[in-house]
Amino acid sequence: MYCVSEERRPRAREIGIQTGIFSPGELNSITDVSGVMVGHCTVFHGEGKLVPGKGPARTGVTSILPHSGNVFREKVPGAACVFNGYGKSVGLQQMNETGTLETPILLTNTLNVGIVADALVEWCIERNDDIGITTSTVNPVVGEVNDGYLNDIQGRHVRKEHVFAAIEGAKPGPVEEGSVGAGTGSSCLGWKGGIGTSSRVLPESLGGYAVGVLVQSNFGGVLTVDGVPVGRRLGRFAYRDHLEDSSSEPIEEDGSVMVVIASDAPLDHRQLRRLAARASLGLARTGFYGSNGSGDFFLAFSTALRIPHEGAGMLNADLVANDAMSALFLAVVEATEEAVLNSMLRATTVVGRDGHVVEAINIAELLDVMREFGRLVR
Amino acid sequence: MYCVSEERRPRAREIGIQTGIFSPGELNSITDVSGVMVGHCTVFHGEGKLVPGKGPARTGVTSILPHSGNVFREKVPGAACVFNGYGKSVGLQQMNETGTLETPILLTNTLNVGIVADALVEWCIERNDDIGITTSTVNPVVGEVNDGYLNDIQGRHVRKEHVFAAIEGAKPGPVEEGSVGAGTGSSCLGWKGGIGTSSRVLPESLGGYAVGVLVQSNFGGVLTVDGVPVGRRLGRFAYRDHLEDSSSEPIEEDGSVMVVIASDAPLDHRQLRRLAARASLGLARTGFYGSNGSGDFFLAFSTALRIPHEGAGMLNADLVANDAMSALFLAVVEATEEAVLNSMLRATTVVGRDGHVVEAINIAELLDVMREFGRLVR
Amino acid sequence: MYCVSEERRPRAREIGIQTGIFSPGELNSITDVSGVMVGHCTVFHGEGKLVPGKGPARTGVTSILPHSGNVFREKVPGAACVFNGYGKSVGLQQMNETGTLETPILLTNTLNVGIVADALVEWCIERNDDIGITTSTVNPVVGEVNDGYLNDIQGRHVRKEHVFAAIEGAKPGPVEEGSVGAGTGSSCLGWKGGIGTSSRVLPESLGGYAVGVLVQSNFGGVLTVDGVPVGRRLGRFAYRDHLEDSSSEPIEEDGSVMVVIASDAPLDHRQLRRLAARASLGLARTGFYGSNGSGDFFLAFSTALRIPHEGAGMLNADLVANDAMSALFLAVVEATEEAVLNSMLRATTVVGRDGHVVEAINIAELLDVMREFGRLVR
Amino acid sequence: MYCVSEERRPRAREIGIQTGIFSPGELNSITDVSGVMVGHCTVFHGEGKLVPGKGPARTGVTSILPHSGNVFREKVPGAACVFNGYGKSVGLQQMNETGTLETPILLTNTLNVGIVADALVEWCIERNDDIGITTSTVNPVVGEVNDGYLNDIQGRHVRKEHVFAAIEGAKPGPVEEGSVGAGTGSSCLGWKGGIGTSSRVLPESLGGYAVGVLVQSNFGGVLTVDGVPVGRRLGRFAYRDHLEDSSSEPIEEDGSVMVVIASDAPLDHRQLRRLAARASLGLARTGFYGSNGSGDFFLAFSTALRIPHEGAGMLNADLVANDAMSALFLAVVEATEEAVLNSMLRATTVVGRDGHVVEAINIAELLDVMREFGRLVR
Repeated sequence: MYCVSEERRPRAREIGIQTGIFSPGELNSITDVSGVMVGHCTVFHGEGKLVPGKGPARTGVTSILPHSGNVFREKVPGAACVFNGYGKSVGLQQMNETGTLETPILLTNTLNVGIVADALVEWCIERNDDIGITTSTVNPVVGEVNDGYLNDIQGRHVRKEHVFAAIEGAKPGPVEEGSVGAGTGSSCLGWKGGIGTSSRVLPESLGGYAVGVLVQSNFGGVLTVDGVPVGRRLGRFAYRDHLEDSSSEPIEEDGSVMVVIASDAPLDHRQLRRLAARASLGLARTGFYGSNGSGDFFLAFSTALRIPHEGAGMLNADLVANDAMSALFLAVVEATEEAVLNSMLRATTVVGRDGHVVEAINIAELLDVMREFGRLVR
Repeated sequence: MYCVSEERRPRAREIGIQTGIFSPGELNSITDVSGVMVGHCTVFHGEGKLVPGKGPARTGVTSILPHSGNVFREKVPGAACVFNGYGKSVGLQQMNETGTLETPILLTNTLNVGIVADALVEWCIERNDDIGITTSTVNPVVGEVNDGYLNDIQGRHVRKEHVFAAIEGAKPGPVEEGSVGAGTGSSCLGWKGGIGTSSRVLPESLGGYAVGVLVQSNFGGVLTVDGVPVGRRLGRFAYRDHLEDSSSEPIEEDGSVMVVIASDAPLDHRQLRRLAARASLGLARTGFYGSNGSGDFFLAFSTALRIPHEGAGMLNADLVANDAMSALFLAVVEATEEAVLNSMLRATTVVGRDGHVVEAINIAELLDVMREFGRLVR
Repeated sequence: MYCVSEERRPRAREIGIQTGIFSPGELNSITDVSGVMVGHCTVFHGEGKLVPGKGPARTGVTSILPHSGNVFREKVPGAACVFNGYGKSVGLQQMNETGTLETPILLTNTLNVGIVADALVEWCIERNDDIGITTSTVNPVVGEVNDGYLNDIQGRHVRKEHVFAAIEGAKPGPVEEGSVGAGTGSSCLGWKGGIGTSSRVLPESLGGYAVGVLVQSNFGGVLTVDGVPVGRRLGRFAYRDHLEDSSSEPIEEDGSVMVVIASDAPLDHRQLRRLAARASLGLARTGFYGSNGSGDFFLAFSTALRIPHEGAGMLNADLVANDAMSALFLAVVEATEEAVLNSMLRATTVVGRDGHVVEAINIAELLDVMREFGRLVR
Repeated sequence: MYCVSEERRPRAREIGIQTGIFSPGELNSITDVSGVMVGHCTVFHGEGKLVPGKGPARTGVTSILPHSGNVFREKVPGAACVFNGYGKSVGLQQMNETGTLETPILLTNTLNVGIVADALVEWCIERNDDIGITTSTVNPVVGEVNDGYLNDIQGRHVRKEHVFAAIEGAKPGPVEEGSVGAGTGSSCLGWKGGIGTSSRVLPESLGGYAVGVLVQSNFGGVLTVDGVPVGRRLGRFAYRDHLEDSSSEPIEEDGSVMVVIASDAPLDHRQLRRLAARASLGLARTGFYGSNGSGDFFLAFSTALRIPHEGAGMLNADLVANDAMSALFLAVVEATEEAVLNSMLRATTVVGRDGHVVEAINIAELLDVMREFGRLVR
């Protein structure tokens, strides 16, 4: 277990990249949704040649908690949308059947899902000793991306203690982004990806709700920043080796992306599933095209309602009207786009197994391109 | 029945707007997929005050045929993806169960689906007199968007003769775009939408396949052209009345979009469904965000295979490997984006019921914005 | 338009066939769910040789209304489940997206769906003159089965006037069953099928809710009555020609079945979708096996809640808890099974096109088999 | 790790219970599908009072292998159908996206899924050292049911060595059934459930294909044996405490069921998904009604085709025609029903944690009821 120290790299808005029409919340983070907490545990050790099972490890785990209470006892409405099922996330089927989320959401690497899910079960049992004995079992929710280019993914280096640390370290307030937690070893659009977050708060006339998004970015495509074709300009994009320069290094097309959406709007399962579906549109704005091997899973939950584990069903609630969903949808699109940008901007270069390097995007070069296309807000 | 004469408005590439990394086919049209044919019948009559059931009519029907033979007898693999089910398209469930398309695909307006589907059944029966008597019934596939702002949509002015004309007028070669056929009365992103088409042909090293897309554009959002925030610059975008200028005219958020995808790659139902799912990503690049009332349905078919109505199952076929799907997915994204742009560029201003006007986007103004953002290819 | 006069054939319970463990409501009908109304219009004319487009007609339309008010203005929660998508039902996608039902549900024959949907749109427009003008469009819900063995299905003999008659004739109270309305020309398990209904009322300790089911039965398999292998005993079942007697007449394997479920339990879309899914289990008890060409669609709605067309979202409601759903599920299974039995018992023999005869099951023979297997309740 | 010695209890056909119209294969087992292998590892230790984490353990793991080769390198077409998503199975999303199965299928208990999935990943890595390094990751497929009434389910007693033993012990030929492997601690319809299997071989005139089913039975309802209401007759059924005798012991309504279907018919993903959907109908014949907390997951694969991990896509194949699917569907229904009966008949009484006893059904009593209802074949 290791905490990467990193130079202070900027978020998108700090360098004048200002996407979308709605305004972010105070932190421009998923934690702008009141009650939501995020924690990371970075697993980073060893270097040099890959010794499967030993290292180097460039991975981790990230937790998102819908509230600070006992989520198993006080569930929240939840839903999942699978855009491309080529992934190993667990817990989504039950979320969609019961309409509820009853554990923290954990993100990790692909081959580590089993261990992480098991640790999450254990963590829940420690807090709810009736699970599987006098009450039902628990449905752990774990997402993943493939960080095997940098990480000894066969080693499944995320262990119980890392999971517990990520959950117990979860807190409200600013969220650490970039090459941290479950984003330690991920790559995105040819550069270093990782964890990113953003939020939107709707105008009062549109409901005034907050929508927060956290992404674990690890996908291929053609990097587009606020509409500017940065990937093409910088010569790093999907299929360049087939189109422009057959000697160029192909970028990794596959990978995956996890998007976690929180809102304080009173929304039920059906509405949350609609919210989750819109995450793909935000990703598309950054250059995502849903490549074959990309497992793209989107989860959404509402903090406005609690569904008691024991009890008489859903609480009374005036849900958002169907007609009023549209602005929430656009908020999801915008916050997802910006969360991906933040994940890349805040990410630091990582040298991983076999000396593989995934570079953080060069901010100066990026700004040059943005300026060229008339796109910096002062 | 009426053919709109229109000034010659340009397609995107004709004015230097060149999106994506792959190259279009010769016609930059769905008809670049060999065998595919498109036909339109425009229904345009009356003017002035709306008299429900009388007019004015600003609507029509568009047909897409996978080949020139008898599609009921020689079906093609087909699939549908529902992004937002808030729409009235018919025939999708059976396409997804049998994995085949067995009629021309027709597009029309929302309330006209019943009459158009019925006419399509009749057209098929005329060519296959055993339908429902000595063989199975036929599954008509009809998509729709709501053109009620311009059109007397209650009037359901598309009748059997229009349907037959659209099917029988279908032909290979260049496709008429804009305010024509099923696009006559549609609006998109605050301007006039309509029918648009585009294509991509993959490099030989990626399979060399053609992918063609035809859209019926009618949705809300923030117009983005090759990444440039045109809608914001021109002051016409979603929620402007809530954000910048409460006296501004709200644009229509709802509406819908139909996307029809054809490919000559040998693809089965499962693969086509994956193709169809990527259409949303192309729409997202134009400013689409999947508003509540937008019924967004995507259909895909392959012309490389034929499934005989009577017969022993699917023909022998070396399907595209899963790993080779990615480039096809990006082709879908790019062609969908460009088809939307073409639908708007080629569309002409239409004055409809109650004097409602939906303006075609002003090309000169658009070009000014594109230039400002460094985005015109010479 | 024609009302079949029929001898009074019994329902299952009237001859001692008593399936399931829960008790039916007073009418043992979908109309035991307070407010639900059912109407039929039978279209029966001509005889002898089939003249496509002329007749004979052996078909019709059946309407199910969730309440006596304006359903477009006061929608109810609704959901659809597609077991086998090989069918042409319309309106299901939007029900599942918006979570609401906003029209009467109509049932008819396969090729008539277009005309019937169009007539339903017209009926709604007559009562809501703002549809598509100053408010959204309307989503007609129409199910179907293939009655082409008896009926001139190409003729699409159900017209607007029949649709209006079926809706306007809808009433609470006992429901006419058998060869009536949309069940006029249907066949089931080798005998005459048609419309059937049944209900269950849960004990107070399980919530006390009513669940009602109406089926349009038209499927293949091996008739099983309260577990007794009646089809085999009477020598009429799927694949008999392949197994026992190659000279026997094959029964029609394909066809379809529509199941409409109503409940007065407060249930939202997600819960109703779960209810709808259980219909297949009730069908299975009667010998249904989901043959290839059987379009099996299940719709469910709740009468306990109203969602205003204009308004602030879902009303306050204490929904049924997930844990309390189980008894409702079993009620659906039981009422579906019994509704199929009633559809066959109440059906009368119909002679249709080309002299095709589909016999009603012989009650005396059936009772003999039931007695042999110790299955009659006195 | 422990092998339960058990008296020799009979399978259904051995005592004259002969369900369905099609004939079983030679072994009446999933292993009648050539190449399929099954292995079990039973984990059974301790007794008396539950000490969470210690025991007693009444659980295990069962493996189903589609062929004896390296399944990761030579995948088979596969599909999953979720009837009730209230379960924790893993690997289904990717099966449905890629259309392939690339690992053995493992069954275990609910809380053990993480450990078992992790062990399966490890087992695959040991045989494919390029996983996640120079090729893609692997998608482990694991199903589960809740055996917590008998088993110390919190203890997650199934460990890596048990998983490896179950996979490596897999073999063709007769399959051990009942309280063994993943069925050690399961309960069904008020009695002891467990592992059961059955098969059907279609007549040559219907294709001559074999269909095999293996179930892990653990659900609630009203036991029905070949249509006979055994559960009611023996006074043990769902809701008896609400209906007949409020002092009766309620049976466990929840639980789950896993159904694994194999066929040697050449079927692709879409067709296998249709096959899998029919499993619910076979379950329904035994009294299953899909209770709220029952996670009901059905998996299907074809042994007729191989999809190479590296390679040019799906091999040439004449797939089964849609029209010829129906007989396969009925075979699934029948084999599923009989597999459940075998699981209960072959199961032995198990005494578990806290002295909980789940009795095997009494064969003599069962036969008395069957005789009473005229249902024994001589």
